Amino acid sequence: MASRLIVIGGVAAGMSAAAKARRTDRDLEIIAYEKGSFISYAACGMPYWLAGDIPDHEKLIVRSPEQMRKQGIQVQVRHEVTAIEADTRTVTVKDLENENTFTQGYDRLVLGTGARPAWPPLGSTGLPGVFGLRSLESGLALQQFIRENSPQKAVIVGGGYIAIEMAETFRRLGLDATMMVRSGKILRSTLDDDMRELVEAELARYGVRVITGTLTSLEGDDQVVAAASAHERVPCDLVLMGMGARPNVELAKAAGATLGPTGAIATDAYMRTNLPDVYAAGDCCEVLNLVTGKPAYIPLGSTANKQGRVAGENAAGGQARFGSVVGTMVVRCFNLVVASTGLTAARASAAGFKVQETMVRAKDISHYFPGASDIHVKLVVDGSRDRLLGGQIVGSRGVAKRIDVLATALYNRMSITELRQLDLSYAPPFAPVWDPILVAANVAAKE
Amino acid sequence: MASRLIVIGGVAAGMSAAAKARRTDRDLEIIAYEKGSFISYAACGMPYWLAGDIPDHEKLIVRSPEQMRKQGIQVQVRHEVTAIEADTRTVTVKDLENENTFTQGYDRLVLGTGARPAWPPLGSTGLPGVFGLRSLESGLALQQFIRENSPQKAVIVGGGYIAIEMAETFRRLGLDATMMVRSGKILRSTLDDDMRELVEAELARYGVRVITGTLTSLEGDDQVVAAASAHERVPCDLVLMGMGARPNVELAKAAGATLGPTGAIATDAYMRTNLPDVYAAGDCCEVLNLVTGKPAYIPLGSTANKQGRVAGENAAGGQARFGSVVGTMVVRCFNLVVASTGLTAARASAAGFKVQETMVRAKDISHYFPGASDIHVKLVVDGSRDRLLGGQIVGSRGVAKRIDVLATALYNRMSITELRQLDLSYAPPFAPVWDPILVAANVAAKE
Repeated sequence: MASRLIVIGGVAAGMSAAAKARRTDRDLEIIAYEKGSFISYAACGMPYWLAGDIPDHEKLIVRSPEQMRKQGIQVQVRHEVTAIEADTRTVTVKDLENENTFTQGYDRLVLGTGARPAWPPLGSTGLPGVFGLRSLESGLALQQFIRENSPQKAVIVGGGYIAIEMAETFRRLGLDATMMVRSGKILRSTLDDDMRELVEAELARYGVRVITGTLTSLEGDDQVVAAASAHERVPCDLVLMGMGARPNVELAKAAGATLGPTGAIATDAYMRTNLPDVYAAGDCCEVLNLVTGKPAYIPLGSTANKQGRVAGENAAGGQARFGSVVGTMVVRCFNLVVASTGLTAARASAAGFKVQETMVRAKDISHYFPGASDIHVKLVVDGSRDRLLGGQIVGSRGVAKRIDVLATALYNRMSITELRQLDLSYAPPFAPVWDPILVAANVAAKE
Repeated sequence: MASRLIVIGGVAAGMSAAAKARRTDRDLEIIAYEKGSFISYAACGMPYWLAGDIPDHEKLIVRSPEQMRKQGIQVQVRHEVTAIEADTRTVTVKDLENENTFTQGYDRLVLGTGARPAWPPLGSTGLPGVFGLRSLESGLALQQFIRENSPQKAVIVGGGYIAIEMAETFRRLGLDATMMVRSGKILRSTLDDDMRELVEAELARYGVRVITGTLTSLEGDDQVVAAASAHERVPCDLVLMGMGARPNVELAKAAGATLGPTGAIATDAYMRTNLPDVYAAGDCCEVLNLVTGKPAYIPLGSTANKQGRVAGENAAGGQARFGSVVGTMVVRCFNLVVASTGLTAARASAAGFKVQETMVRAKDISHYFPGASDIHVKLVVDGSRDRLLGGQIVGSRGVAKRIDVLATALYNRMSITELRQLDLSYAPPFAPVWDPILVAANVAAKE
């Protein structure tokens, strides 16, 4: 009899795992349960769909349950796995349509339960007009609210990349937008203060207000009418919780899965949990940060897809490994592109490194070429060992792929001496003769 | 008494060397001789200046002799060094304005004599209407000819990147453009046939004809009227020699400098020639190709600037090293961007590697995002050792900086197994969740 793989979760990690398991073992029985109504969608595209760049939410859906079925993967939407019994290799499943509960045995299991928006411990967050943005359902609910209520003033609680993307979306939709950030520092974990100022200026240029404060209450009876911190009450008719993500670990934890220091599920490089034949992947897991050598919680779609693929291959008998991450991110903020990889100077100092930091302003293409714009590159270096620890880039073009050069440098544990020698592409429409990365490396080498 | 550094050549390598020497040793006397009338200009920008993107050739000039003088560097233009006597540490200089000749002693010498366009061994290449494009003077002469003669039909002899850029320029100026390529293969040393087809299609789309053939004669009395190969006679009133560059080594060779197997000046990692206290840098030198471990002749502005800096630092008493190159290039071809690094499959096979090649077509940004376009990525792998040997990318956006990821991977001698694990940036406006490089690496890993 063929083995059975059960996948819990039908989005990035879960569907990558199922598809890769199918390609690895043609005979495996594969069943995936997804609590929500949609599978395999590009959640990261939602801010742009809500802004109108993408005409229809169906464009965000990569594969339907029918398409998965044709690949021999049974996908059950609106089915919540409520318990895992590792001893008997059984899951308990609730059909949310009819509340029926049943059990199903497995030989291998992949946890892809994802994450949910971080949520403040306030009673009033259930008010109409208060939204998170993670599942496609949450995006559809937000879209419907905007269409039906034509809100005028949005408060975004938090300052991470989804908060920034949604501030842009709200402004483009004509709403006032205020970001309420606990530390007052947007992108706190990925940008240092000098680079943050550039992003703050861009937000201000486009009318986004950033205020410092912790959300202490949401006011309203039938609908939210204000968000308040200890210092300020901001009238609003729409609130978006953009304080980051929390891993959905309750199911795994109840089954005996070990959580790591970050509170997310701990796995080895093969994406195995401590439970026999139970793998985990994606936003419910922690990762190993290559730069610090320590576990970190960095939920990103790119990582979820890679991990899902590894978990699926191994659950089907393979021996794939997921390495570590360096924490690469990029986000659009109006006409700026903001990217970071590795450690900020602040985080590197906190981690005990002897930090040397260099920031340069250069042109993104040859200075004489039409459209040449400023680009800022910051390098964070371990001064005692000449080793690159991180980089940040803010500019209008050529940012995302330049941060990837630094991400590749971090993966290879490059020194600044080596970084200066890189043979990077040069032609006037695409880069100056000294690429801004090399300019930064040259300056760093002198410091 | 202060030491004296003489720099021969006033463009990329020479001026980088002079400026870096000045910063390294404030007391050094620095004299630079430049045969032409201009110094420190961005020759690579000329095709775009000729096309009208850049309004004035002065925009291409980075530093004037006056600016150099303010930094304490004496620059003599229209001064040709005609001999170097290494034993007595003396150069012979001819002032081209008045034909006066004088000698000057040196303590250190940097050769930055550059390169000239490769030129066919035909008697008729002196005809009006026949041009090379390397010095700013040659660009001004071409511009003047176009303005005064309004040519209608251009033949570009050769298929390298300058040939492609000038084909675009001529089409944009309204001329017919025919490329006469000896092998029939444009970008022969940097693209494999499968990737070349994409570029050929783009040239055809914009009306550039590519014909196979070696130039055997140029016809005309007062002016060129046709270019012919053994197979075909192409009527034309403008011919551009775009067959690549030849290093200017005659001066160095006569002085006893050793040339390498490529025919360019051989140096060590400190940019030292075999002559005592004589350094060389830029297009007159060969480089070490990191992938093959062998000398190569790859004259590029980015390399010239890096080498000039190293030569200048060392000539002023420093101990800088220039590493090796991986042969990264990028060129615009109408709406395509074409990039390459490392070895093509053809070159790798010729070099004795057991080559495995992978080519994928993917989207350059998230498929659902407006403007997502096809991008083609090719990886060349040493199948016996899982080591990346080269990459080629053709697309419309995000090409130049993606090739830089592969250039960084080559520098670090990465395997495909490692390449797949790179933590590259992801956000819908900038990259798909699986960056095309990772897609290619995943496919390569399966082959």
